[in-house]
Amino acid sequence: MTDLVDWIAVDWGTSNLRAWGIDKDGNVAVERSSPKGMGKLTREEFPTALTELLDGVTSAGGGPIEVLICGMAGARQGWLEAPYLEAPTDLANLYAGAVRPAMPDPRLAPAILPGVCQRGGSDDVMRGEETQLLGLAALHPDFAGIVCMPGTHSKWARLDGTRIGHFSTAMTGEMFELLRSQSVLRHSLNGDLDGPGRSAGFVAGARAGLDHPDQLLGTLFKVRASALLSDRQPDWCAGYLSGLLIGTEVGSNRHLIGEQPVPLIGSPALCGLYAQVLAMIGATGVPQDTTKIVLAGLKAARGRTV
Amino acid sequence: MTDLVDWIAVDWGTSNLRAWGIDKDGNVAVERSSPKGMGKLTREEFPTALTELLDGVTSAGGGPIEVLICGMAGARQGWLEAPYLEAPTDLANLYAGAVRPAMPDPRLAPAILPGVCQRGGSDDVMRGEETQLLGLAALHPDFAGIVCMPGTHSKWARLDGTRIGHFSTAMTGEMFELLRSQSVLRHSLNGDLDGPGRSAGFVAGARAGLDHPDQLLGTLFKVRASALLSDRQPDWCAGYLSGLLIGTEVGSNRHLIGEQPVPLIGSPALCGLYAQVLAMIGATGVPQDTTKIVLAGLKAARGRTV
Repeated sequence: MTDLVDWIAVDWGTSNLRAWGIDKDGNVAVERSSPKGMGKLTREEFPTALTELLDGVTSAGGGPIEVLICGMAGARQGWLEAPYLEAPTDLANLYAGAVRPAMPDPRLAPAILPGVCQRGGSDDVMRGEETQLLGLAALHPDFAGIVCMPGTHSKWARLDGTRIGHFSTAMTGEMFELLRSQSVLRHSLNGDLDGPGRSAGFVAGARAGLDHPDQLLGTLFKVRASALLSDRQPDWCAGYLSGLLIGTEVGSNRHLIGEQPVPLIGSPALCGLYAQVLAMIGATGVPQDTTKIVLAGLKAARGRTV
Repeated sequence: MTDLVDWIAVDWGTSNLRAWGIDKDGNVAVERSSPKGMGKLTREEFPTALTELLDGVTSAGGGPIEVLICGMAGARQGWLEAPYLEAPTDLANLYAGAVRPAMPDPRLAPAILPGVCQRGGSDDVMRGEETQLLGLAALHPDFAGIVCMPGTHSKWARLDGTRIGHFSTAMTGEMFELLRSQSVLRHSLNGDLDGPGRSAGFVAGARAGLDHPDQLLGTLFKVRASALLSDRQPDWCAGYLSGLLIGTEVGSNRHLIGEQPVPLIGSPALCGLYAQVLAMIGATGVPQDTTKIVLAGLKAARGRTV
């Protein structure tokens, strides 16, 4: 059995690889995924990973199928570096910046979208999020405001239509993992982390982070001291650490948050936590369907309507 | 050959163990050290570690020699837990709070000094630093002000004579090690970290941390972005990371720093960096001789004059 498609949308991140075959009506005809993220592949392994993932997917119109890729496949250590666009810029320019790696399989014509960088004192980079932002703009053409993209490296970006303004990255998710598993705090996080104390710890940590984002280096140690002195259990400590980091991130970006609800693009669980912290300062976070967003972004990059 | 001593002063930290045999005139008659820090020992191994370290050291007066210990040996996971004194308190009370673990070797009579804790919303703990603070008070009886103790877990403490007031811990040193070796930033810190760019990176990072201590989670990622975009070399990146963390710590404690010079207790290299950052905000850091300080603290705890 073969799947007939017009083109293929691919989100190639550090950890995972996802593909959607789009038919001539713009609908998803086939969906594939694999754990072969950029981080697990050498440069030479990318073409085979793509061929294997798309086994049995066939061009509806004959000729090679365009495979439009966003994400870390375009990083320097990825398949082929797709040079960054520089913010502020119009994300409608993404497609023009795509690079086309050599592909041994003649049935596939891959193109990798660029990331976006920012220079001049606030050096920063993104790869993949720019396509999600374009997707948000495609789904909500009138949106103008700040967008929050929680994750290992959270992004906060100003978006006006398809135009990206200033953005910044916070290493919140990575910091949580490092502190949980590698730091002295791990001694207080050894047990059932999802017990009933987690949500109280989360609120206490978020409050501390929101109120004093400048005190992170000091407040972190409270996780350990509270376990030693106040018999705080691992679930409470895990909640506190998570809340403290997210609260600090939101607190340090508070000046960017206006009256407008803040779209949240990321995993549903994480977006739920960010929405909870935003609510603590009277703001509204609106979790988005990330799959829908990235697909809309790839379609919009290719100039198709959503 | 034997060394005749009146009593023995011991600093038993997480990583190392140091001992000084004090003669009847209060002078150091013998000095010993070993890598058998608390972190490397099970509870049962402490007595043997002490006996081995003090092999050949003999009581000048006959009878068991008092071995006065400060530091992590008194932690819950150490030899015998020495319950914390609670700040604010007079550090002259340390000796009264010492615990005396069972000792198979009858020639030695160990006593472990307590740490100091803080409760009531700003839970915090120290073990070892309280003895150093007492040492500072013994050497400088008129000192009243804030003391900075740089390290894996830096401490900032208010000291008035022998009285400790509010204190806090910053996980600065541990964070540097985690970020340098385990985080995404390690990709930018792979090479000669002590090249000529290090000091320029340090100043840039310290400036960023001092000016915006609330932006740490975001500014950290600049280490990576600057390497990708501005071709920053590993030495510059290492300096930036170090400066950013120390600058953030100093910046978040800025409100505590008055006109008074700030005594710095820690390794000479680290104290030099803190002094440099303090100078950037017009403050003066004064590195102390840490060995002299801890010895003065143990002597003072035992009621001897320095």
